[in-house]
Order: sequence, then C-alpha cells, then structure tokens
Amino acid sequence: MQALVLDDTLSLRDVDAPVAGPGEALIRVQLAGVCGTDLAMVRGYKGTFGVLGHEFVGMVVACDDPSWLGARVVGEINLGCGACWACAAGRGRHCVNRRVLGILDQAGCFASHTVLPIRNLHRVPDDMDDIVAVFCEPLAAALHAVGEATAELGEVAVVGDGRLGLLHVLALRALGRDVVLYGRHPHKLEIARQVGARVAGADTGFEPAHDLVIEATGSAEGALAALARVRACGTLVLKSTVTHPIAWDTNRLVVDELRVEGSRCGPFEPALELLASGRLDPRPLIEGILPLSRGLEAFELAAKPGALKWLLLP
Amino acid sequence: MQALVLDDTLSLRDVDAPVAGPGEALIRVQLAGVCGTDLAMVRGYKGTFGVLGHEFVGMVVACDDPSWLGARVVGEINLGCGACWACAAGRGRHCVNRRVLGILDQAGCFASHTVLPIRNLHRVPDDMDDIVAVFCEPLAAALHAVGEATAELGEVAVVGDGRLGLLHVLALRALGRDVVLYGRHPHKLEIARQVGARVAGADTGFEPAHDLVIEATGSAEGALAALARVRACGTLVLKSTVTHPIAWDTNRLVVDELRVEGSRCGPFEPALELLASGRLDPRPLIEGILPLSRGLEAFELAAKPGALKWLLLP
Repeated sequence: MQALVLDDTLSLRDVDAPVAGPGEALIRVQLAGVCGTDLAMVRGYKGTFGVLGHEFVGMVVACDDPSWLGARVVGEINLGCGACWACAAGRGRHCVNRRVLGILDQAGCFASHTVLPIRNLHRVPDDMDDIVAVFCEPLAAALHAVGEATAELGEVAVVGDGRLGLLHVLALRALGRDVVLYGRHPHKLEIARQVGARVAGADTGFEPAHDLVIEATGSAEGALAALARVRACGTLVLKSTVTHPIAWDTNRLVVDELRVEGSRCGPFEPALELLASGRLDPRPLIEGILPLSRGLEAFELAAKPGALKWLLLP
Repeated sequence: MQALVLDDTLSLRDVDAPVAGPGEALIRVQLAGVCGTDLAMVRGYKGTFGVLGHEFVGMVVACDDPSWLGARVVGEINLGCGACWACAAGRGRHCVNRRVLGILDQAGCFASHTVLPIRNLHRVPDDMDDIVAVFCEPLAAALHAVGEATAELGEVAVVGDGRLGLLHVLALRALGRDVVLYGRHPHKLEIARQVGARVAGADTGFEPAHDLVIEATGSAEGALAALARVRACGTLVLKSTVTHPIAWDTNRLVVDELRVEGSRCGPFEPALELLASGRLDPRPLIEGILPLSRGLEAFELAAKPGALKWLLLP
C-alpha cells in the first residue's frame, strides 16, 4: 500500500500493509489530519519513524471480534503495555513502554490501512461526517487542556492562533466560556470572532489578567508571553512541545503561586459527544483536502505560516 | 525600641516604636523566627527594607477593639488593600497593593513591638507554648504546599533537608502520609527518620517515581533534580525562590503532562489546629534561641550550611 513514511526525510512510498493481530483491528483509513506534531517530526527529528499520522477516521475491515466489523471508528493513539505502573494506575496514555500511532513504534494512518487495538477504538455516530470525526483526536486533547475551565475562572485566554489555538477557542466557546484569543493572523482571529471570542493582537495584553491561559504558540517566547498573562493563583496550560528548555521566572511562580501544567492527550468520549452535539463545528479550521498521493504537498502547505488544517484522503 | 533593620546592610539599632491605627493591634513580640526569606533579603537584595521579621508569637498590648487586648496571637503576614481584584476574589495574600510584614512596606517583628491589622490575627490556645506557636506561619505555608497530598498519591517526596524541607516532612507525617526526604545532612535526615519518613541521599533516586514532589532546595539545580523525580501526571510544588530563571525541560512537562506549582503562604487556622493537636512537634527543628540584642549573630548562625531554626527573644 502507499504511505507517507518518515525515514530521515519524508517520502511517499509502497510499504507492506499492516496485519491485525489478536485483539486488534485493521482499519481502512477514510480521512486523516496533518498535525503540528507530524510537522515537528519531519522538521526536527532524525531517525526511522515509519508511517506517520495519528488523526483519522476509518472503517474496521478485519478484526477477531465480529461486532466491530464494518464499524466506522476513531482511535486513541497511545498503546499501553497493560503491565507497568502507569497502566496499573489508569494512566495508560503514559505507559512507560507505550507505542504511539504514527509517532512511536506503531505504523500510522497516512496510508490506506492502519492497525490499532480494539480497546483503542470508538464508534463514530452514523450522522457524523468524516470531516467532523477526523477532529476527534485533537479535540480530545483540547478538552483535556481546558478541563478546568469552569465559568468561575472568568475569561480564558488562548495564546497562539494556529490550528491548535483555534481548536481550543472552539472548544471553550462550545462549553460556554468567555474567551480571548491573542494572535497574529487576521483571517484566523476572524474564525475566533465568528464563534463569539474576543480577539487581540499577539503583542498586546501582557498584564497578568487571567486565571487560565492556554498556550498554543509553538515557541519559547510565546510560552513566556503566555505566562505573563496569568494572574496570581492562576494556571498556564502548556500545549507546545518546544525542544529546548525554557528559562522560566521561577520566582514569580512561587511568589504569585502560579501553576504551569503540560497537556498532551485526552479521552475521546467527551470529544465525540461534543462533536455529535453540533455545538462545535470544526469545519472553519479546514484549509483543504488532498489525496494521499499528494501528501508531500499537503505537508508543505500545512507548514506555511498561518496555515490551517490540511486533511489527507487515502 | 531596638530592632533588626535591613538598609543595604543588616544592623541592630534604635527605631521609633510603631503605633496601632484604627483596626490595628500593637503587639509585644514574645518570640520570633529567622526564615530563609530573611536570609535571602539580607544576602540578595539592595534597598531600604526597614525592620525585618515575619514569624512571631506575641501579645496584643494596644488595640481599639478591647476583646483583643491581652490576647496571645500569631499573625498572617500579607496586608491586602481590600479593593483590588485579588482582594475581591478572596486572594488577599496576592493583593496587588499588598504590604507584607517585615518584607514589603510594613515594619516586621524583629523588635520589641510590631503592628498588624486585627483581621490578620489568630488567637493562640492557652496551652500552646510560644516555642510551638512561633512555627505557625511557616507551617501554614507548608500545609498549603502539601494541600493536595492525599493518600492515593502514594509516597510523597521532599527534596532538600533544610528547615523548610523538614517542616514539610513533619507536616506530611502529621497528616499520615508516606514520605521520603532527599537530603545531604545526616543530622537533619535523622529528624525525618524519627517521625517515620524514609530518607535518601540527595544524589540518589532520580527516576520519575512520585506523584507529588515538594521542592525545598533553594537552588535551580535542586529544583530540576526535584522535577526529575516526578512521574507522569504528577506535580512538583516549588517552594524555593530562586532569583534567576530556571531552564525547565518544557517538552517533558507537556509529554508527561506534569504540573509545576509555586507555593508561598497558607491560611493559619489549619496550622494552629495541627499544632494544637500535638500531632506535629516542631521542637526538633530548633537549633537555638538568642536574645534580639544578639540578632546579628543569630543571622550568621542561621546562614551556615546545615543550620536549623534560630529564634529571637526580644
């Protein structure tokens, strides 16, 4: 089968189709999303990673449990060992021996077929379009990040108007929260404005004014600027993986009793429910859809400054 | 009156006695504690700070509310303006216009008398020794820091065996938690062992093994070593105010979904209750008591590596 493979460089090539083992499902990929992590892997990492891709919606075409055959599914991306402390503590997403779809030791979904354990799968409601369901994985992560955003916290700030930041804005608005988005791109700020968020320039609003700030900038400078907006006793949720260390003003963390919280993934069910409710429409985040055969072009387009979501059709 | 005054250098000198205004109490200081913050101010800051000292127990000797006259009291150190967002949100400790006893624009307790608003005061139970009550302020802060230490989190790690670290160990043990203390000083580790804590060398145990790690090292290296001991989804509570920025591995914060939380002060009531219960005996932390007239010597002794608590008797 044709797949996007990262192996020092990214290439489109023929690879053996995966085979489902016991407890696993072979999934025909119907739509897949290009994520910032994919771009970071192509840009920043060296080594053999295999087939990329971890955001998808697809159909189960082979599986030893017949109840799943033909099911339209999305899938959680972390494969736990079931035996380590993290798995025992119900933190399978943090399994110390984990494989991660399209990221670590598990061939991803930028291909015609992919494989996941059945326990990672979630059925997609019949009336949900693929183009909506494919956002389940990043939305699950966003909902985890905004998990503590109760109404009492007042206006939540999102810093960074990329795909990630905008998805957090949509999630917060769908939950009925007041939001301000700090960003640089008028067409992206407009998407936030359309759902009722306040918008502001990235170079404004540095006073510590928010109880909850979601950082989605992808840069160390952005993360520090986000921290500057957190007021005493408030929380900064970090979403960007910045490969070099960031020099935090630790003194301020202590004196103002701030909290800095990393967030990576989230459970799928709340994301599916929110998408099914119709309260969150991810379509404005889509910049385009290309066939998998033009996957390299999609990566180039997704990497452009200001790009929104690119989807791949295997 | 005689007082320890910081004014570029620390000196013992005569100053005017403070006067209680409306809603305030004049307190005769009976015992005061030298804290790491005092040492850091003497060592690190330039400027005119006035009378130092914020840990005390004393007696109200003048006050416009007669019900407080003669009361033995401890006092919360942050004086809020009552008008800013923080005061309105019940976060008076973070008042943006705050004065702080012996630290910021409010003469402290290293003197025969000090003044605080009545609303900052807490009565000390009759059967509690001054030598115990004087630990109320730092214990309140410690209880705030260990606030989330439920039994489900397993063994809590405290990193740093100074006064601050040991007080956290005593608090955690009094709350019935399993604790390991990482430190360098055999005589201090022994204090932790006596209350049932596990002890270990500061250069051991760097695997991420704890859900909650309390950092009380006073150094950037110590803070980073403490973070290394936090396992996925766990929390690092920062107690040390380190004046220069610390280069955190932010990537790990995100991937392992860690939380870094600064902690500075806490409410007094739980601390008074715990001291009154007899479940926490702070006496093993005391290295010595000197009269205020030998305050400069007490500061020198308290600044020595491995020093425990020095108290001043005005």
